[in-house]
Amino acid sequence: MKIGQKNYRTIWFEKNLIKIIDQTKLPHKFVIKQLKTVKDSINAIKTMEVRGAPLIGATAAYGLVLSIIEKNDQSFLQKSSEDLISARPTAINLKWAVDRMMKKISGTNSKEILKIALYEAKAIVEEDVEFCKNIGINGLKIIEKIANKKKDTVNILTHCNAGWLATIDWGTATSPIYYAHKKGIKVHVWVDETRPRNQGANLTSFELNEEGIPNTIIADNTGGILMQRGQVDLCIVGTDRTLSNGDVCNKIGTYLKALAAKDNDVPFYVALPSSTIDWKTKNFKDIPIEERNSSELSHIQGLDKDNKLQKFLIYPKKSKAMNLAFDITPAKLVTGLITEKGICEASKKGLKRLFEKNLL
Amino acid sequence: MKIGQKNYRTIWFEKNLIKIIDQTKLPHKFVIKQLKTVKDSINAIKTMEVRGAPLIGATAAYGLVLSIIEKNDQSFLQKSSEDLISARPTAINLKWAVDRMMKKISGTNSKEILKIALYEAKAIVEEDVEFCKNIGINGLKIIEKIANKKKDTVNILTHCNAGWLATIDWGTATSPIYYAHKKGIKVHVWVDETRPRNQGANLTSFELNEEGIPNTIIADNTGGILMQRGQVDLCIVGTDRTLSNGDVCNKIGTYLKALAAKDNDVPFYVALPSSTIDWKTKNFKDIPIEERNSSELSHIQGLDKDNKLQKFLIYPKKSKAMNLAFDITPAKLVTGLITEKGICEASKKGLKRLFEKNLL
Repeated sequence: MKIGQKNYRTIWFEKNLIKIIDQTKLPHKFVIKQLKTVKDSINAIKTMEVRGAPLIGATAAYGLVLSIIEKNDQSFLQKSSEDLISARPTAINLKWAVDRMMKKISGTNSKEILKIALYEAKAIVEEDVEFCKNIGINGLKIIEKIANKKKDTVNILTHCNAGWLATIDWGTATSPIYYAHKKGIKVHVWVDETRPRNQGANLTSFELNEEGIPNTIIADNTGGILMQRGQVDLCIVGTDRTLSNGDVCNKIGTYLKALAAKDNDVPFYVALPSSTIDWKTKNFKDIPIEERNSSELSHIQGLDKDNKLQKFLIYPKKSKAMNLAFDITPAKLVTGLITEKGICEASKKGLKRLFEKNLL
Repeated sequence: MKIGQKNYRTIWFEKNLIKIIDQTKLPHKFVIKQLKTVKDSINAIKTMEVRGAPLIGATAAYGLVLSIIEKNDQSFLQKSSEDLISARPTAINLKWAVDRMMKKISGTNSKEILKIALYEAKAIVEEDVEFCKNIGINGLKIIEKIANKKKDTVNILTHCNAGWLATIDWGTATSPIYYAHKKGIKVHVWVDETRPRNQGANLTSFELNEEGIPNTIIADNTGGILMQRGQVDLCIVGTDRTLSNGDVCNKIGTYLKALAAKDNDVPFYVALPSSTIDWKTKNFKDIPIEERNSSELSHIQGLDKDNKLQKFLIYPKKSKAMNLAFDITPAKLVTGLITEKGICEASKKGLKRLFEKNLL
């Protein structure tokens, strides 16, 4: 999608290097960063220079390619794959991408391995683009239906960034919005700021601006009263891991919006590529919920009056803070899942209809 | 209550001046500010140097005293009272305090008026302290009951600042917590950051620190998963206006926490002095919800690396933001109201039992 009239993807492989858009600098600075080693790619995932479940999966896949370039050795590769998986615990795509890569390359003839790894990583990336496009085409129907009935701008609320910046291109939650916009349907997006890292304000609003889609940032506290007042027609969010029973693990705060949507009869959809589905875990209590450094809460990055990017302390010096990154939205609160294969009920039955073979 | 071992109130009248703690500078700077004119007091309310429903009521009462000192003239007094009421639209105590003052002083002999006004303003202030103490004594029973059953630290979640800094002393939501702490009951408070103005982090955590009460700041998004995990025993919040049917208007985001509390069987109490009850408005849709400047979202105040207090931009330059200050928690989500007269059901019946005469 576009940044300043030019089309970008969030990640690409060029001359034996990974190139990424450094998302910790957005929206204030647009910086393309090079990752030269597998350690660089692990670090980019940990520090959230890349983030979003599909994008960290792709970064891990290319990270394994870097690992082979660095040292074509099976035990180094094994160690790299483990370090990549443990870089962030909650998003399932990370493990999914590494497992898929390792299945192809572990034990492979060392002359062929680089070629095979690069081919598979590219396949993961291209597949994600294709999946996101299909999520857009499928989700578009929901927006179209509301637009036809309402005959006025469709107000969509989203939380965090499940935009193209969280994927390779198009995004998950944003893809139906981009498709609707391109079709001439009037949409307006309520963008949850998404504390503590403000991915809504910093990334979602930024990318919607660049695509010319009207949007308004709101505090995470605001969605409830907007729904009470009838100012939200639809919620669409992404997910870092969806269980086969339809429970959704996503950015902290998603659950609260889903509760408000239910209380006000606002449809609440979750958009996801099937790589985000955890077919094994049965109970959401078994999902590891990442706890990040509390300085992400107490300190914030912004432009000072001299237009310089700085980090500032915004809490009392003596105060403690706690920073959980995800929460669980129970399936009962989810109107439907928008996947690359179609829209289904957030339940085993619904998912089975679309992904029969995974559930065998 | 204490700031650095010394006892303070949030407002006092001294040598024909109002003195306040400037709450826009907390927690980074402790500044006592003088208000010399009624205009100063209107401004202090508008810019939130004083905030919290009971405290803005008290500031308005003293503001009318300043108005008389400035110009002992009935039409000036009338104008002052109107300007004070319109300084902020949602909190009902503002109108309540101004109406109570005007009932005593409008049309009064100009020789007596100053004495009468000062007497009444002081009565409002002392009454609020007394009410908050009684809220503490009444609410203590709820915490005691949980502590006796749990035999471990009681985890209480609160939103925004309904602490002593929102009143004259003791606070509303915090008063039961202070009483429990003084009685030796182990309490720990989850403090919602409370975007966009961060009154939870800046004020509630600050005042709990100063009183030595363990507390942890969390993003507003976090309360849901804490409740899902059983890490919240009780929610207590304040209110800016409670209708006689039990619907509660409070800081934006309160509604979302009340929904999560209901979904996880966590008791959700609202603490209030009866001056906060709006006996007239029948439907919450008739409560004016204040919309504040969007720069409160896009800009934030903090300490830079040189320990200098600065405001800086945290949003994309092109982005729009919208800043609603309050939302509505329907009575169905409220376990009970903690008032100076006792605890009651959040309903007409419940309130009638405690405040019979107001409902006639």
